Amino acid sequence: MEASSEVNSDLARERSRATFDKENLTNFLYGGPAAVRKKRYLENIIKQDPVLQRGRRWAFQSREERADTGVWKHLYVDKLQADLGVTDVKERAYLRDAAAAHEGYVLGLHFGMIIPTIKNQASEEQQKKWLPMAESMRMIATYAQTELGHGTFIRGLETTATYDPKTEEFILNTPTLSAIKYWPGGLGKTVNHCVLMAQLFTEGVSRGIHMFMVQVRDLDSHLPLPGIEIGDIGPKFGFEEMDNGYLKIDNVRIPRENMLMKYSKVLKDGTYQQPPSDKLAYGSMVLLRCSITASVAKCLAEACVISIRYSAVRRQTEISPGGEEAQILDYQTQQYHLFPLLATSFAMQFAGNFIDDFYREKYPDIAKGRFDFLPQLHAMSAGLKAFSAWTCSAGVETCRQCCGGHGYSHASGLPKIYVDCTPACTYEGENMVLMLQVARFLMKEYSKLMNGQPLSSVVQFLKCDLTKKSCMTEEVALKCLVLAYQHRVTRLVADAANCIQDIIGEGKSQQEAWNSCTVRLFWAARAFCHAFVVENFVNTVSEKHLDEKTREVLTSLCRLYGVHGIITNLGEFIQDDFFNSEQIQILSHTLTVLLREIRPNAVALVDAYDFPDTVLQSCLGRFDGQVYKALYDYAKSSPLNEKEVLDSYYKYIKPAQMPNKELISRL
Amino acid sequence: MEASSEVNSDLARERSRATFDKENLTNFLYGGPAAVRKKRYLENIIKQDPVLQRGRRWAFQSREERADTGVWKHLYVDKLQADLGVTDVKERAYLRDAAAAHEGYVLGLHFGMIIPTIKNQASEEQQKKWLPMAESMRMIATYAQTELGHGTFIRGLETTATYDPKTEEFILNTPTLSAIKYWPGGLGKTVNHCVLMAQLFTEGVSRGIHMFMVQVRDLDSHLPLPGIEIGDIGPKFGFEEMDNGYLKIDNVRIPRENMLMKYSKVLKDGTYQQPPSDKLAYGSMVLLRCSITASVAKCLAEACVISIRYSAVRRQTEISPGGEEAQILDYQTQQYHLFPLLATSFAMQFAGNFIDDFYREKYPDIAKGRFDFLPQLHAMSAGLKAFSAWTCSAGVETCRQCCGGHGYSHASGLPKIYVDCTPACTYEGENMVLMLQVARFLMKEYSKLMNGQPLSSVVQFLKCDLTKKSCMTEEVALKCLVLAYQHRVTRLVADAANCIQDIIGEGKSQQEAWNSCTVRLFWAARAFCHAFVVENFVNTVSEKHLDEKTREVLTSLCRLYGVHGIITNLGEFIQDDFFNSEQIQILSHTLTVLLREIRPNAVALVDAYDFPDTVLQSCLGRFDGQVYKALYDYAKSSPLNEKEVLDSYYKYIKPAQMPNKELISRL
Repeated sequence: MEASSEVNSDLARERSRATFDKENLTNFLYGGPAAVRKKRYLENIIKQDPVLQRGRRWAFQSREERADTGVWKHLYVDKLQADLGVTDVKERAYLRDAAAAHEGYVLGLHFGMIIPTIKNQASEEQQKKWLPMAESMRMIATYAQTELGHGTFIRGLETTATYDPKTEEFILNTPTLSAIKYWPGGLGKTVNHCVLMAQLFTEGVSRGIHMFMVQVRDLDSHLPLPGIEIGDIGPKFGFEEMDNGYLKIDNVRIPRENMLMKYSKVLKDGTYQQPPSDKLAYGSMVLLRCSITASVAKCLAEACVISIRYSAVRRQTEISPGGEEAQILDYQTQQYHLFPLLATSFAMQFAGNFIDDFYREKYPDIAKGRFDFLPQLHAMSAGLKAFSAWTCSAGVETCRQCCGGHGYSHASGLPKIYVDCTPACTYEGENMVLMLQVARFLMKEYSKLMNGQPLSSVVQFLKCDLTKKSCMTEEVALKCLVLAYQHRVTRLVADAANCIQDIIGEGKSQQEAWNSCTVRLFWAARAFCHAFVVENFVNTVSEKHLDEKTREVLTSLCRLYGVHGIITNLGEFIQDDFFNSEQIQILSHTLTVLLREIRPNAVALVDAYDFPDTVLQSCLGRFDGQVYKALYDYAKSSPLNEKEVLDSYYKYIKPAQMPNKELISRL
Repeated sequence: MEASSEVNSDLARERSRATFDKENLTNFLYGGPAAVRKKRYLENIIKQDPVLQRGRRWAFQSREERADTGVWKHLYVDKLQADLGVTDVKERAYLRDAAAAHEGYVLGLHFGMIIPTIKNQASEEQQKKWLPMAESMRMIATYAQTELGHGTFIRGLETTATYDPKTEEFILNTPTLSAIKYWPGGLGKTVNHCVLMAQLFTEGVSRGIHMFMVQVRDLDSHLPLPGIEIGDIGPKFGFEEMDNGYLKIDNVRIPRENMLMKYSKVLKDGTYQQPPSDKLAYGSMVLLRCSITASVAKCLAEACVISIRYSAVRRQTEISPGGEEAQILDYQTQQYHLFPLLATSFAMQFAGNFIDDFYREKYPDIAKGRFDFLPQLHAMSAGLKAFSAWTCSAGVETCRQCCGGHGYSHASGLPKIYVDCTPACTYEGENMVLMLQVARFLMKEYSKLMNGQPLSSVVQFLKCDLTKKSCMTEEVALKCLVLAYQHRVTRLVADAANCIQDIIGEGKSQQEAWNSCTVRLFWAARAFCHAFVVENFVNTVSEKHLDEKTREVLTSLCRLYGVHGIITNLGEFIQDDFFNSEQIQILSHTLTVLLREIRPNAVALVDAYDFPDTVLQSCLGRFDGQVYKALYDYAKSSPLNEKEVLDSYYKYIKPAQMPNKELISRL
């Protein structure tokens, strides 16, 4: 995989003793040998590109350098993609990740969100005007929705666009402190336009949130236009390359034609025309959400690669006195932390594939105004986004902690993956809010069930008989695992519905009842997502075309994912005695049996992800396992070592060594 | 608390409706009104100090600036402490935290660890020589133990000190790549000495790990001495102010007198004299561990203050259509995340007090060579350190996520608290390793139980009857909560012991059996720590002198801590039907009842922690609740806004707007 120096002997041995051919799994993950060859070809171009080798490694740069590097690197990769004629979304991502993994791209929203928004939400005339400008980068824009005071509750946004029929203009304002736009990526310093979400007022009536194309900076000087106060929002946990920005607007006028008018319209005289359906504005948000599951799964996969390779190389503590120190991957507790996460990374990857396919399959209908599948698509995309973002970002942190002290260094690459992954819990729908939307879907389905109406396809199992006990035997059949998860959801859905009914029975409103049961609703929604991911994993290993050896290994992982989830959430499975105590013993025992079963293939499994070192950016996760050499080199090149003696020594420490500590008292 | 502007009206209302006087709780937490007055007096000195106002806020500084600031700020505070005659450990901490909360102190190890080590481990003669040097800072030292290849397993350290009787010197070497010292705080650029942990060889025999005082830099020029390669290890997740360092030693000779010889000795001719007991080197490590519980509890407490105040100020989503938006603290799911953590912060604070007292009470005996209490002290300090570090650092992250997008900004102060807290899972004993030491203690006690021998005081409950069911009723008595936790431990301890016995029964060695059961052993140890924290919380609210209103509020928190822990780990409590299904319903229902019960006091409870704004360093956690104003000010002062147009615009973006993208292709 890497043209590297000698491979660490422990890693080499691990690779030689795998029971399956990791190349087959790689082919399965990336869509066949031709796709894998293309992937490696593209990654190799990046690896050998002299321009991209320039500058210091990410961790050694100041925020200003990172922001600067972020721009040139990504523009350079854009150019490379164009020159190579790479248009496929996945192939473009291989290039970008190999060039700048987890390094934000300030123009990403412009190309990934604004151009599609113009296509979907602007009239043909507007498209004709704006698309060429946007594609040539004459116009660079971002999506200005979130305000200081509002994120989740879009209808509460306070920015106003008031139509003035006399001049045929909208007057834009952020009328309060909390109305100031805050967070949009690239808004601070990069863009010269934004698609502004604002409350439309026309004919003296509030018409709800609409989109407006607003120029914020001069196209030539790049200075802010009159009435516009704009800037970066300052350093964050991560995303340091990104100039997330704020925007304060004071009586800025824009022409009527700058409202995005494919669906809603404001006529010259101020007449408002409603969109044919509220649901049409929905598509691009759902698409973005669908993509998150695969992307957080990738973060977790990378963290697993790093921590499992390192655990194979790291030796610590003699197992028997005077004997050789053990690879830490041989400790059961290390396996207990890492292998379920490895299984999770595959589970989430497959869930990401599912939701992506589901979107592609159902969206054309939705775009045509047939909304039958919209509730399911909405619930699944919301639930999988939230469930995967929580699970994967927490998993990345566990991987980091499993690498001990070295995991805490940016040399490990793990902190950067975490700070890149964890915002997925918040953006594109706050996780808990999304979970409660899933719960709302489940409650609707449950009431259909109660009324004898047909159920949506993804919740057919709600019909199951709750008095039936588990079929689990020593074999730990995948089917019995799936049934267990479905039983759990069904019980929790009924439980949440009863909670609501009980409170309504006490004379409270529907709304109050809902608000008093949200913890139970959350439990039901979480269990639903979990069940879906388990079932989808089982379907993947059972139905997909795989050679037998690979299927065996993936089946072990699938079983581990299922068993570990039960043991970790055991209470929710057994409070109605669904499992008897013998079955609990079987599951608990199977957990450690599976850890042992997966152990010999652990390194080959992470190798199968086929992430080149340029993507991992990790001294611990290197393909060649030369971790100590890499850590030593990392240290030697630390910017703090550029001076042998720091100025602070002369300025503060030397004076403090003097009896009167003179300089310190004069500070 | 703060001489601030107008207080946000939601926060003001929250404060007015508390059912208890938060001042009473503050007094209880800090040891009485006089101590609280002193605390505030000292914090106020810092707040008004003009020198400490200098420089940019932490998040806006480069790593180099942070390292620089770290030195002068702390030296300045040291001087202030001396001038004010503040010698009490807690009072010194009030000053330090108010001046530089969560900003590392490169000389902290010198004063906090090296000077005590000289006192405890050096001979009287050595002390006479080194103490004045260390106290005057002529000698600045750190503790050089961890190597690239070894952290946990001290006996595996590879650095060597070989005695040469001809010259009466030790020859020091880091003979391999993995022997390079790596991580010691301040080692990179600050210190001129270190206490080196190395394998002693004398008379051709390996004598195990000993301590040596080694000069690494010239006392005047501060340049590295011959044979010494030394430097910073580069940027990490946090601790950016700290120059954690690496050290490579090539045949460096030090005089015989530089081995720390209070206990072990090497005579001139190379004769080795053993220490009277291995256990004597133990004290300072245990002390450090004991201090961690309180310190991570404080991190969690700060995160709770920030997230709960913010949740009271933040309003999002109308509860009924067209109505006022609700404070997010009113959402049950938000309470479900935050209130158990608030309870945890108190639980861990009290556990920290316990272990601190326990150490103080038992250590004098241990120092005198009476080791009866050492196993308990060791197990409790190890277990509470690991359990609290995991719980509190994960809790800080949950608090951050509960603040939505704004939590991700360094403006919230939360990311900094997290990166400062999470290393506690690794340093001073890797958490899982410590947990297995607790498990070893439990297994020893269990075998005493089996053999009818008396048990240590902290595990008396292991005698309980496992067939007895829970006494839980609707009242949810604290006593029944404690018994439930003790039942859980007892069952898991027996379960782990059986696991080991079964495997030994299959003919495996003791060692193999242990290694095959470490997951179960971990479960038992975790349950033991959890039970202890619950019991100690119950004892605190039951036995300590408190006014009735305060006791009521703390009792609600204590009950919530207990109930939430059961619901979250329900499987471990009910797999032997310890609770019947009615009892489970009671507990599950009580959870949401308690959330409602705590709600009106939430803000007053966090106020009671009495952290001044200078400690919290948070736009979201401000006492006055003016969060949006603070976030706006934070953004405006972002260093990226110093230039209206960034260089990258001229260098890269403008050229990219040209049709031929000329500059980009020439990059």
